[in-house]
Amino acid sequence: MINMRVKQMDVKGGMSALEIIEEMAGAGVFIAGRLAKAVQVLSDMISDKEVTVFLGAAGALVPAGLGRIMAEMVYDGFVDVFVTTGANITHDLIEAFGGRHERGISGEDEELRNKGISRIFDSYISDDAFVLFEKKIQEILADISVEKRRQGIPVYELLKEIGLHLDYKYSFVKAAAEVDVPIFCPAITDSILGLQMWLFSQREELKLDVLEDLHKIVSIAYDTKKAGAFILGGGVPKNYILQAMLITGKGFNYAVQITLDRPESGGLSGATLSEAKSWGKVAKNAITVDVIADITITLPLIFSALKEMLEKRLKSES
Amino acid sequence: MINMRVKQMDVKGGMSALEIIEEMAGAGVFIAGRLAKAVQVLSDMISDKEVTVFLGAAGALVPAGLGRIMAEMVYDGFVDVFVTTGANITHDLIEAFGGRHERGISGEDEELRNKGISRIFDSYISDDAFVLFEKKIQEILADISVEKRRQGIPVYELLKEIGLHLDYKYSFVKAAAEVDVPIFCPAITDSILGLQMWLFSQREELKLDVLEDLHKIVSIAYDTKKAGAFILGGGVPKNYILQAMLITGKGFNYAVQITLDRPESGGLSGATLSEAKSWGKVAKNAITVDVIADITITLPLIFSALKEMLEKRLKSES
Amino acid sequence: MINMRVKQMDVKGGMSALEIIEEMAGAGVFIAGRLAKAVQVLSDMISDKEVTVFLGAAGALVPAGLGRIMAEMVYDGFVDVFVTTGANITHDLIEAFGGRHERGISGEDEELRNKGISRIFDSYISDDAFVLFEKKIQEILADISVEKRRQGIPVYELLKEIGLHLDYKYSFVKAAAEVDVPIFCPAITDSILGLQMWLFSQREELKLDVLEDLHKIVSIAYDTKKAGAFILGGGVPKNYILQAMLITGKGFNYAVQITLDRPESGGLSGATLSEAKSWGKVAKNAITVDVIADITITLPLIFSALKEMLEKRLKSES
Amino acid sequence: MINMRVKQMDVKGGMSALEIIEEMAGAGVFIAGRLAKAVQVLSDMISDKEVTVFLGAAGALVPAGLGRIMAEMVYDGFVDVFVTTGANITHDLIEAFGGRHERGISGEDEELRNKGISRIFDSYISDDAFVLFEKKIQEILADISVEKRRQGIPVYELLKEIGLHLDYKYSFVKAAAEVDVPIFCPAITDSILGLQMWLFSQREELKLDVLEDLHKIVSIAYDTKKAGAFILGGGVPKNYILQAMLITGKGFNYAVQITLDRPESGGLSGATLSEAKSWGKVAKNAITVDVIADITITLPLIFSALKEMLEKRLKSES
Repeated sequence: MINMRVKQMDVKGGMSALEIIEEMAGAGVFIAGRLAKAVQVLSDMISDKEVTVFLGAAGALVPAGLGRIMAEMVYDGFVDVFVTTGANITHDLIEAFGGRHERGISGEDEELRNKGISRIFDSYISDDAFVLFEKKIQEILADISVEKRRQGIPVYELLKEIGLHLDYKYSFVKAAAEVDVPIFCPAITDSILGLQMWLFSQREELKLDVLEDLHKIVSIAYDTKKAGAFILGGGVPKNYILQAMLITGKGFNYAVQITLDRPESGGLSGATLSEAKSWGKVAKNAITVDVIADITITLPLIFSALKEMLEKRLKSES
Repeated sequence: MINMRVKQMDVKGGMSALEIIEEMAGAGVFIAGRLAKAVQVLSDMISDKEVTVFLGAAGALVPAGLGRIMAEMVYDGFVDVFVTTGANITHDLIEAFGGRHERGISGEDEELRNKGISRIFDSYISDDAFVLFEKKIQEILADISVEKRRQGIPVYELLKEIGLHLDYKYSFVKAAAEVDVPIFCPAITDSILGLQMWLFSQREELKLDVLEDLHKIVSIAYDTKKAGAFILGGGVPKNYILQAMLITGKGFNYAVQITLDRPESGGLSGATLSEAKSWGKVAKNAITVDVIADITITLPLIFSALKEMLEKRLKSES
Repeated sequence: MINMRVKQMDVKGGMSALEIIEEMAGAGVFIAGRLAKAVQVLSDMISDKEVTVFLGAAGALVPAGLGRIMAEMVYDGFVDVFVTTGANITHDLIEAFGGRHERGISGEDEELRNKGISRIFDSYISDDAFVLFEKKIQEILADISVEKRRQGIPVYELLKEIGLHLDYKYSFVKAAAEVDVPIFCPAITDSILGLQMWLFSQREELKLDVLEDLHKIVSIAYDTKKAGAFILGGGVPKNYILQAMLITGKGFNYAVQITLDRPESGGLSGATLSEAKSWGKVAKNAITVDVIADITITLPLIFSALKEMLEKRLKSES
Repeated sequence: MINMRVKQMDVKGGMSALEIIEEMAGAGVFIAGRLAKAVQVLSDMISDKEVTVFLGAAGALVPAGLGRIMAEMVYDGFVDVFVTTGANITHDLIEAFGGRHERGISGEDEELRNKGISRIFDSYISDDAFVLFEKKIQEILADISVEKRRQGIPVYELLKEIGLHLDYKYSFVKAAAEVDVPIFCPAITDSILGLQMWLFSQREELKLDVLEDLHKIVSIAYDTKKAGAFILGGGVPKNYILQAMLITGKGFNYAVQITLDRPESGGLSGATLSEAKSWGKVAKNAITVDVIADITITLPLIFSALKEMLEKRLKSES
C-alpha cells in the first residue's frame, strides 16, 4: 500500500516554472502536490483535441495584472468556452479603451473617494477611466444593429460584437471575439458594464436574451465528446459551467479548480469537485484537482509551465 | 486616547442571545465585538422607518436550515428589498413544494450519485425533490399570462408570481410576495430554476427582461431617504445591492456584512465595506460593520437578539 | 439511508443560548450543526466523572475578554488539566495585577509605539501594564523557595505558586491554583512571562525543569479511566495534550476542537481530529467534533449552553 | 499621487522563477505583488553582511518535501539563527535516520492506525520510522557527556550535538550543526523528540536548560548590527524570534512572513508585521512584507529566485 516516497524537492536558481513544478510533483503532497497535478491534468485536457475546455474566471483578474494571460490563453487555444463575471469584462474593456489600473496609492477610503479613486484591495482606478469607459461603450452599443437590440440579444453575442470593436491585443474580450470563443456572463447586469447597458436602454432599444445564452452553452455541452473545466475562483462562472454539463447527463471528464474558498460554509464557490460528482456535474470517473491557493501566484506559474510542456510535446511529436 | 476597558465577559447559563451579545459588546473586540456592533447597527436601521433595508443573501441558506429565519425576517418587516441567488430560491421552492433537505448520510460522492442523492457539504437532497420541483415549477410558469411571458418579464415580477402560487409559510419567496418585498436575482439563469425556465422556453413563450430588473432596483435606490445594507455572504447579491446605490450618487448610510471571504484575493465577495466607500457605494460617513464569521452560527443569534431588542424598544415606546 | 430532515431553525426573541443551539441541532448541518454537536459532547464528557478533561487554550483569550469564562470553567469543574500558552498566562496575570486591556484606540502602529501602546488586533495594552507586570512577577518569583528554584522547578508548579499569590477572582491562573488543576505551558519561554523569568535568572537562582512537566502530564494521562479533550485554537497546547495520551496507547475518548485553522497546510493546528486517530492520539471509536469557527463568538455560547444544560441535568437527577 | 501602472504580466514558457516573479513585481498588487516584494527584501537582507537573519519555521516542512530546501538555505548562508518546532526537527531526523514520508495512501484514519500508519494531511509515515527514530535518538542522547546532561543543557546545544551525529546531507539539523547556526526550539517537549528525551530522562540523567536558550538568543539579538526575520508559518518560532529583538529595544529592520493565518482571531500566528511595530518587535521604519500564501508553493519559488538573484549579484560584483 505504501508506494511512493515524498521526494524532498531539489530546487536550483534559474529553474523554469515547469522544472520547479516537476519537483513539486516529486514531493506530491500538500498544496504544491495539487498544483503539480493540476498542471498535468490541464496539459492533458488542453492537448486532447476531443476535449472541449470550459474556463471559469471569477475574481479580479485584470486589476491583478492577469488580463494578458487570459487573452493569451484564448489565443493559444487553451479555451473553447469562456465564462466570467461582469466585473472581469468591465476591467478588461477599461484597459482596452486606454484606461489604467494603478498601484502604490495610500490614504483612507474616504479620501480616495474625494480624489475620485476607487480601490480593489491594493489596485486602484480613477474616475477618468470610468468616464472613458462610458463614452466608448455607449458608442459601441449604438453601433449594434437596432434590429438585434430590439429582438433581444444574448449576452455572448453582444460581447462578441463588443470584442470586434476593440483594438488592444491583451484584451480577452477581443481575443475571444477574434478566435470565436463565446464568452458567457450570466450576471452581466451585476457590473458597471450592466449599468451602462441599462443607461443605454433608457434612451435606445436594448433587450438582453439571457435564456438564449443558456440555450447556447447547453447546446455546446451536449455536443462535446469530452469536457474539461478549468475554474479560477468560484462564483457564478463555476456553477454556470458545471450546470451546463449536468443537464446533458454526462458530467465533466476533467476538472481543475483554484480557489481559497472552503466548503464548510455550504456555498458553491468553495464546494469540492468531488461534491460535484454527487450532482452529476462532474462524471464519476473524472479526474479532478482542487487547488486551495491564490490565483495571482498560481496562474502565472501554471501558464508558464503549460506553455513549456505543450511546446515540448509538440517538438517530440514532430 | 485610551478610553474603554475590554470588559471580561460575564456569561451565565440561561442567558438570552441578546444578553450574551451585550457581554460581547462589553468586551468590544475581535469578532465577538463586531458581531455585537452589527446587532446594534441592524437594530438602528431596521427600526428607523426612513431607512430602506436591502438584504443580500448568498450561500446555501435553506439547505443550512436558515430558510425559515429568512421568511420571518421578511414577515417581520426587517427587509424592504431582497437580493439573492438562484440557488437560494431553488432550495426555498423545493421545500415549499414539499421536498426535503436531509442529513446523516454517509458514502462517497460517486455512490451518492448512484443512489440519486446530491450533496451540499453535509446537507443532502434526493433526485425526487428535483423531479417534484420540475413538475411544480413548470405548472406555475405555464400559469403566468402568455402576454407577459412573450413581452419579457423582469425576474422580480416572475418571482412574485411564483411566490403567490405557494402555500408554505416558511418560504421567503412566498413571504416576499405576500408583503410585496421585491426579490431580485441577477444570475437567475445560473441555477436549477434558471434551467427550468430555459426548458420551459423551449416549448412555450418565455423571455426574461433583466434590464428591467436593474431599472427597478435603481429606481428604489433613487427613492430612498436613507439606505441600509445587510449582506449575508458575498457574491452577486452583494455587488448588485452596492452598485444600485452607487449609481444614485448617495451611497449606503448603514452596511453590515457577514462573510468569511477575505479581501486579499481582490474579489468583491471579500472586499471590506470600507473599500466600498472608495467607490461611493457606501457613503463616506456611513456606519459599517464587517463581521468575519460563519452565517449559520451568527444569523440565528442576530435574529433572536434583534427580535428581543425590537420588542423591548416597542414596549418602552408604548 | 436518508433518515433525518434538516429542520428549518425556529428562532425567537429572548431564547437562551441553549435553546438556539437546540434549533441548530435540529438543522444539524454545516458549522451550526457542529457547534450543537460540540455542546452535546462537551456536556457528556464534563458530566461523566470518569472522564479527565484536558483543556487546550491557544490564542488571545484575555485580550478578547474571555479570561473570566476560562476562570469560571475551572471553578465550575469543567477542566481537570489546563494547557495553554505563555501569552495567555501573561495577559491573565496582567489583569490580575491590575493592568487593563483597552479598546477604541486608533492610529498607525508606529504612532502607537510612540505612545507606549501595544496592539493585539483591536485590543490594546499600555506599557504601564507591563511595568506593573514586571514589578509584581519579580516579587513573586523572589518569594518562591530558593531551594526549589535552584533544583529546577517544573512549570506547572511554578504557575501554581504564582496562582496562589493572586487576589483576583477572574484569573484562570488563580482559579487553577485554588482548585488544584495543573496548568501546563510547554513554551513558557516564548512569552513576556518567560522573558521575565530569564531576567530573574540573571540575578537569582532559577531553573525550569520542563521534562518534569512532561512527566506529570503523561502520568495524568496514564491514570485516566476515560479522557476528553476540549481544544480552543491549535498551537502547542493542542499537540501537547494529544501527545500525552498518544504515549499511553489509549487515545482520547472524546475530543472537541474549535479553530479556524485548516488542514491543507499540513500544520498540526489545523489538522482534523480524525487525522489524530491515525496517530493513536484519539481513540478509534472516539466521538470527535471539529468546529471550524471563531472562539470569541462560540465560547460564550457554549459556556452558557453548558451551564444551562448541566444545571438542568442536576435538577432532574435530584 | 497615482504613479505606477499595474503592468499586465507577460509570462512565457520556459521562464525562470525569478523572471516570473519579476512579472509579478511589474503588476505589483494582490498576493503576487507581495510575493515579489518579499523576494526583493529577502535578497537585500541576505546579501547585506551586517544583517543577522533569523529564520522561523513552523508547519510540516519535511513531510511536505521542503526539508532539503531548509538545509540548503542553511548551507548557502541565508540563515544565521534558526527557530523551529519540535515536529520539524523530529521529521528532519526521521529522514536523516533513514525513515521516509510516503504518499498515495488511501483509507480511513482508523484503518491507517490498524496498519501502523500516521497521517499528516496527505503525507504518511509508518510506525517503523518511529521505531528507528527511537533507537537512533536514544543512542545519540546516551552519547552526550553525562556531565552536560546532569547540569542542564540548553536545547540549542543539544540539537547541535544531535546534528553532529548525523550523516545525511539534506538534514537542516545537520546543516546547522556543521555551519554553526544555532537551532532554537522553545517547545521541544511538545514533540516526539521531546517525548524521547523524557523517556531517556527516566533512566539516565537529562535536564534541559530552557532559560539558557533564551539567554543565548537574546544575546545574539543584542549583538546584531541589523536584524532580519524570515518567518514561515506562525506559532512559537514567530514570537520567539520577535520577542528576542523586542527586549533589545531595537526591533527588526527587515521582516517577511508567509502564512495563511489571519489577524482577526487575535492570535500571534496571524498578526500582521505592522502590529509587531506597535510592540517594538519590528522597528518603526522597518521594511516588512506579509505574504498571505501557502508555503509549499511559495518557498520553492522564493528559494529559486533568491539563488538566481544572488548568483547574478555576485557575478556583477566580480
